[in-house]
Amino acid sequence: MRLLAIALGLALLVAPAARAEDGYDLWLRYKPVEAAAKGPYAARAAAIAPARAAETPTLKVARAELERGLTGLVGKPIRAAAGSRDGVIQLSVAPQAGLSDEGYRIRTEAVNGKTTTVIAASKDIGVLYGVFRYLELIQTRQPVDKLDIASSPKVKLRMLNHWDNLNRTVERGYSGQSIFDWWRLPGHVDPRMVDYARANASIGINGTVLNNVNAKADSLTPPFIAKAAALADTFRPYGIKVYLSARFSAPIEIGGLKTADPLDPAVAAFWKAKADEIYKTIPDFGGFLVKANSEGQPGPQDYGRTHVDGANMLADAVGPHGGVVIWRAFVYSHEQPDDRAKQGYSEFKPFDGQFRDNVVIQVKNGAIDFQPREPFHPLFGAMPKSNLGMEFQITKEYLGFSTHLVYLGPLYEETLRSDTQAHGKGSTVAKVVDGSLDGRKLTVMAGVANIGTDRNWSGSQFDQANWYVFGRLAWDPEADTRAIAADWAKMTFTNDPRFVKPVVDMMMGSREAAVDYMTPLGLHHQMGRSHHYGPGPWVAGGERADWTSVYYAKAGPDGLGFDRTPSGSNATAQYAPAVGACYADLKCVDEKDLLWFHHLSWDYRLKSGDTLWNGLVKRYGQGVKYVDGMETTWAAMAPYVDAPRHAEVTDYLKIQRDEAQWWRDASVAWFGSFSKRPLPPGEKAPPKTLQEYEAMTFPWAPGI
Amino acid sequence: MRLLAIALGLALLVAPAARAEDGYDLWLRYKPVEAAAKGPYAARAAAIAPARAAETPTLKVARAELERGLTGLVGKPIRAAAGSRDGVIQLSVAPQAGLSDEGYRIRTEAVNGKTTTVIAASKDIGVLYGVFRYLELIQTRQPVDKLDIASSPKVKLRMLNHWDNLNRTVERGYSGQSIFDWWRLPGHVDPRMVDYARANASIGINGTVLNNVNAKADSLTPPFIAKAAALADTFRPYGIKVYLSARFSAPIEIGGLKTADPLDPAVAAFWKAKADEIYKTIPDFGGFLVKANSEGQPGPQDYGRTHVDGANMLADAVGPHGGVVIWRAFVYSHEQPDDRAKQGYSEFKPFDGQFRDNVVIQVKNGAIDFQPREPFHPLFGAMPKSNLGMEFQITKEYLGFSTHLVYLGPLYEETLRSDTQAHGKGSTVAKVVDGSLDGRKLTVMAGVANIGTDRNWSGSQFDQANWYVFGRLAWDPEADTRAIAADWAKMTFTNDPRFVKPVVDMMMGSREAAVDYMTPLGLHHQMGRSHHYGPGPWVAGGERADWTSVYYAKAGPDGLGFDRTPSGSNATAQYAPAVGACYADLKCVDEKDLLWFHHLSWDYRLKSGDTLWNGLVKRYGQGVKYVDGMETTWAAMAPYVDAPRHAEVTDYLKIQRDEAQWWRDASVAWFGSFSKRPLPPGEKAPPKTLQEYEAMTFPWAPGI
Repeated sequence: MRLLAIALGLALLVAPAARAEDGYDLWLRYKPVEAAAKGPYAARAAAIAPARAAETPTLKVARAELERGLTGLVGKPIRAAAGSRDGVIQLSVAPQAGLSDEGYRIRTEAVNGKTTTVIAASKDIGVLYGVFRYLELIQTRQPVDKLDIASSPKVKLRMLNHWDNLNRTVERGYSGQSIFDWWRLPGHVDPRMVDYARANASIGINGTVLNNVNAKADSLTPPFIAKAAALADTFRPYGIKVYLSARFSAPIEIGGLKTADPLDPAVAAFWKAKADEIYKTIPDFGGFLVKANSEGQPGPQDYGRTHVDGANMLADAVGPHGGVVIWRAFVYSHEQPDDRAKQGYSEFKPFDGQFRDNVVIQVKNGAIDFQPREPFHPLFGAMPKSNLGMEFQITKEYLGFSTHLVYLGPLYEETLRSDTQAHGKGSTVAKVVDGSLDGRKLTVMAGVANIGTDRNWSGSQFDQANWYVFGRLAWDPEADTRAIAADWAKMTFTNDPRFVKPVVDMMMGSREAAVDYMTPLGLHHQMGRSHHYGPGPWVAGGERADWTSVYYAKAGPDGLGFDRTPSGSNATAQYAPAVGACYADLKCVDEKDLLWFHHLSWDYRLKSGDTLWNGLVKRYGQGVKYVDGMETTWAAMAPYVDAPRHAEVTDYLKIQRDEAQWWRDASVAWFGSFSKRPLPPGEKAPPKTLQEYEAMTFPWAPGI
Repeated sequence: MRLLAIALGLALLVAPAARAEDGYDLWLRYKPVEAAAKGPYAARAAAIAPARAAETPTLKVARAELERGLTGLVGKPIRAAAGSRDGVIQLSVAPQAGLSDEGYRIRTEAVNGKTTTVIAASKDIGVLYGVFRYLELIQTRQPVDKLDIASSPKVKLRMLNHWDNLNRTVERGYSGQSIFDWWRLPGHVDPRMVDYARANASIGINGTVLNNVNAKADSLTPPFIAKAAALADTFRPYGIKVYLSARFSAPIEIGGLKTADPLDPAVAAFWKAKADEIYKTIPDFGGFLVKANSEGQPGPQDYGRTHVDGANMLADAVGPHGGVVIWRAFVYSHEQPDDRAKQGYSEFKPFDGQFRDNVVIQVKNGAIDFQPREPFHPLFGAMPKSNLGMEFQITKEYLGFSTHLVYLGPLYEETLRSDTQAHGKGSTVAKVVDGSLDGRKLTVMAGVANIGTDRNWSGSQFDQANWYVFGRLAWDPEADTRAIAADWAKMTFTNDPRFVKPVVDMMMGSREAAVDYMTPLGLHHQMGRSHHYGPGPWVAGGERADWTSVYYAKAGPDGLGFDRTPSGSNATAQYAPAVGACYADLKCVDEKDLLWFHHLSWDYRLKSGDTLWNGLVKRYGQGVKYVDGMETTWAAMAPYVDAPRHAEVTDYLKIQRDEAQWWRDASVAWFGSFSKRPLPPGEKAPPKTLQEYEAMTFPWAPGI
C-alpha cells in the first residue's frame, strides 16, 4: 500500500489535474491503447535504439516524437541498442533504393536475431515522416508485427498558404487570429509554433507561406525578414520551408523606385538584392508566392508587361538560391469578361512553355472561386509545358465558415479524379498535379489554411479533418478520402467502431449536403456579399457584375443557370474536346454540374422526372435533412467522446441546422419569385417574406 | 509491485500526457501541497458537507470549485454531513451580522463536537468568495486549523472594462483577440468564458463591460443583446453582471431618429425602450458605460446639452430596473485647452450634486492618460455630492505592452494612498473610491482589462499579476500591494521562499524602473505617436497639440517640464489648497512629480546635488540597470519554475532590456539636443544619431 501511495502521489505530482480535451492535440493525442490491444504494440516498442547516424535536429525531433508517442500509447520505451533485444525500434538514415528524398521505409527485420522495427530513409526528414506513420499505425490499431511499408510523396511542394495579415487578422479566417505573432517575433517564438510544425510534418506538409497573397510590402523589410527567419529556424527541423507572398509593387513601396516594371533593370536588381538579403538569413527560404493583377493587386500588366515577364524576373532573383516563384492563375482583371470562368485559361494558356523552370502556376481547383462545387479548372491539362500547381481552400469561405460540419475530402477527391482527357482517358487532374502526366518535376499542392489561434486550431473539431485530409492528399493525390477520414476520426476521437463507422459516413456525405442546401444542381456564388456568409441570391449591382449572385445564377422567368455551352459563353471549349462536349450536352453532363453549364427552363425535366423547379426545391430540403441526420448521429456519439468536444460539435451542428434551413428558405423564396410555380407537394413555404430575408445584415462577420 | 503497476497505469489513463504549464490556469492552479506541509490541510479537508441551503447555481459552482481546489491541493474530499466527523467543510447561507451582502466569514467551529470549517455568508455569492479565500489560504500555505476570518468588499461595483471591439480587435490590447466570440454567440459559448468568470470571482470582480467605450451602436441591436445575454447567463452564477458601453448617438444609428439630443422626448423614449428590451433578456443587466464628447465620440454637447443632461437621461432609462450609468470623466473636447490636465476637472466639478443617484462619474487615476506616473486626478475629493469611480488601466498601453514586466500594484497603491486633503489630512483617494469620505453608497473601481485570447490570458505571465492586484484592491483599496504580489507569486508559481522573496522584490521595483527608463522625474506622454510603443519625445505637429510629446515635455534651451504652478497653467489650483501649494512649491513637491508641475533649467539642482540634466540622464540609466537586475534575478529562478513559463519570461525580459536601453538612448539623444550639455561621467553616448531614432517606424503595432 505504501508503494501504491507513492505511485499515486507521484502521478498526481506529474499531472494533478488532467485538462479537459479541447482539440489542441489534433490527431496527435497519443492516448493509451486499450489494455486488450496493447500487447503487440508494447512488444514492438520495447526500446528505441540510438539513431544509426549523427543526430541532426530533424532526427532529434523524430526520436522525441517517437518517445512522446510511444509513452502515451504504450508506456515509456527505454533506450537500447538494436539487436540487443526484441522489440527495438531503429531509426536509420542511409540511401534507400526506390524512395524519393523524402520517402521512408518501415520494415520488421532481424538484427542479431532480434526482431527490430527499422524506420529508414535516405534523408533525416524521411525518418521523421516514417515515425509519424509508425505512430499512426498504432493510433489506428493496425498490426505492426510484420511491417514492410515504403512511401514517397508524389508531390514535391506540399504547402499551406496562410492568408494572414501582419496585424494578425486572417482573410477568410474563422478560427481566431493569425498564429503568427509578428509583433513579438523574433524576440519570442510562441511554443505553439512547434506544435504547428509537428502537426504539419505528421501529414507531410513541407512548406508554408506566412502572409496573405494580398500582401503588404512591409513583410519584405529587414525587421519582418528577421521575424520570418525566427519561424524558419523553428520549422526547419520539421522539414518545413517558409515562403513569403511578395507584393509586386514592393520596389516602389520599400525600394525607393518609381516603377515596378519587371523589365526595368533597377526593378530586377531590387528583387535580386532582396532575394540575396532574404537568403542570407533564411538559407533554405522557399520562394515567393505572387498574386498579380487580380482584385486590385499590382502586377506586370500595370506596365504593359505579361505574367511571363513578371514571374520570370522574380524567378531569376530566387533561382540562384534554389528558390521558386509560385504565380497564381487566379486573375481577376479590372475589365469584366463575358464569362468570369474563362479568364484564367484565357490569360495563361497562351504562355505555356514560356515560364522559367522554377516557376509554378498555381491554379484554383475550379474556375470561379472555391465554391461548394465546381467543375475542375480548364487549365489543368492545358499547359503541359508548364509547372501547374493545385490551390485548394481548406478554410471554408463559401462553406459555412467553421460552424458548418463539411468534410472537404470528397470535394478535393472529386477534382483530383476528374479526367482532363488531355492525353486521352485517365489524364486525371491528380496526374497533372503530381507531374506524371507531362513529366513535370516541380509540383505543388497548396491549401489555403484554416488555422488560427482558436484553441482547437481550425475553429471546430471537424475542420481539423480538412487540414488533415489536405496534407494526406498532397502526399498522395490519389488517396482515398474515406480511408483518410477514418484514420482521422480514430486518431482524433476513438477507434471504437461504434463511433468510427457512423461518423465517417456522416463526414463523407456532409459536403454534398452543403452543396444541396446552398447551391444545388450546379448553382454557384449565391452567398452574401463580401462576407460570403449565408444566402444572398439577390446580391446585384455594386462594383462589378461578376461579384454578384445574379450574374452567376441568371434566374429569370424563363429559367435558371449560366449557359457556358457554345450557344452561350462557350467556356466548355476551354476543356479537351471530349470533356467540353459532354459538359455542353444535356444528355451527357452530370446533373451536379447542370446549371453551371446550362440555362434551363423551370420546367426542364430532371432525370428524377421532377421539373427543374421542383427538383431544385427538393434538393435544398435534402441538404437540410442531412444536417438533421448529422445532429441525430452526433447525439448518439456522446458515449464515445469527451464532454467538451462533444458539446462544441453539438452547438455547431445546431447552428448549421438553423442556417441550412435559412439557406433553403431564402433561396426558395428568391428563385420562387422568378419561377412563379407552386412548391412541390409536402414542401413548406418559407416562414418569412423575401424582403425579410433580403433585409438581414451581418455586421462584424469574420474573415473579411 | 502489481499494485504499483495498476496505480501507475491508472494514473496514465487519467492523464497520459500532462500538458506543459502555459499560464492558462492563472493563480488557480491547485497543485498538490508538498508532502511535508499537507497534513494539516488534509485534516481540515476531509469532507464537504451538503450546503445548508437550497443549492443555487452559485452554491453549485462554489462547491464545485471547492472540490476542484481541494482535489488538486490535498486529494479528493468525500461528501459527509457536518458534525459526523472532524475536518468537514460546511458551506452556509444565513444572515451574517457585520458583513455586507457580498461578504463572507470563515470560522473553525465545533459541530456535534467535531471540528468543522464553516464558510458562511448572507448570500450565496459570499460563500463563493469565501471558498476562493479558503483555497487561497491553502495555496499560500497559511494555517487553517483555527480560522476566524471575516471580509466584506469596500467597493460596491468592482469591474473590468473591456475595450473590445465587435470584430474582436482590442483597443490597447496586447494579449491576442477579444475573448468575446461575438460571431459564434449565442449559439456557442466558449468554455473559456467559465474560466474567465472563475478567475474574476476569485478576486471579487462582480461586473464586466463587454465592449469598447469607443462603442458601436450595433452592440445595442437585438442580435447583440442576445449574444450579451448568453454571456450574462454564463457569468451569473459567479456573481458577475454584464454592462454595455453605449454609443450616445445610437438613437440615430439604430433608432431611426434624427437626433440624439438628451432632452428630446423621442430620444429619452428610445433609451427607455432600449433599456426595457435589454432587461427583458438580461434581468440583472448592470447598466451603461458612456464615453461622451471625448476623442470624437458623440455626446450631449453635440446638442448644446451638458454631461448632466446626458447622464441623467440614461440613468432614468435604466433606473427603474436597478441599473446604473457610468459616465466617464475622460473628456477630450475638440477645443484644445491651455492645459489638457485641467479639462476633466473644469468640465465636471461645476456639476457636483446634479447627477442622479444611479450615475457614477468614472475618473482615470490621473489627469492625462494612464502614464507610468501621474499625480492623482484633481476630481478626487472635489465632487463630494457625486458618486466618483476610479478607472485604472490594467493593460499596459503606456508601459511597454505585454512584453515589459511592470507590476502595477505600486502604481495603483500610490494613487489610492494619495491624500486629497479634501476634508483635511487622511482624505485619501481610497476613501473617495470606497465612498467613506463623503458617505457615498454607489462606489466603483474599474480596470481596463488586459485579457485576450492569448493562452496565458494577459499576454505575459507577469501581467496576470496586474489583473489579480486590481481585483484585490477593488475589494479593499487600502490593501498592501506587496502582500498581494506575494500571494500571487505563491499561487501562480511556488511557495518556495527562495522564489517568492526575490521575485516579489523584483516586481515591487519594476514600475519605478519603467518610470525611470521611460519618463523620469515627472515627464509624461513621451511615447511613439498613436501606438504609444517606444520612445517618441520628438512627436510634434499633427491633429492636435495635446496628442504630442513636445506639448508635455516643453523641452527647450532654457530647460524642461510643464509649468502647472500659478505662474503657468495653474493646474495646481484644482487641488485642495494645501496639496496644490505643495505641488507648486519646489521645496515641497516630490521630485517624482517635478517636471509634471515645473519647468526648470537644465542646471536646476536636484536633491542629489546633480543638475537636472545630469540627474535625468542618470535616472534613465537606473531604469535600464533595474531591468538588467530583473534578468539576473529571473535567470536564478529556473530551478523553481517550469521550463515553458520560465522561457517565456526570459524572452520578454530580454525584449524589455533592449527596449529600456532604446528608451534611454533615444531620450538622451533628444533632450541632449536641447540641453547641449555633456553627459555625466561614465554615461555612454547613444549609439545612434537622433535622426536614426526618429526614423524608426513600427507598422502593425498591436492595440490601435
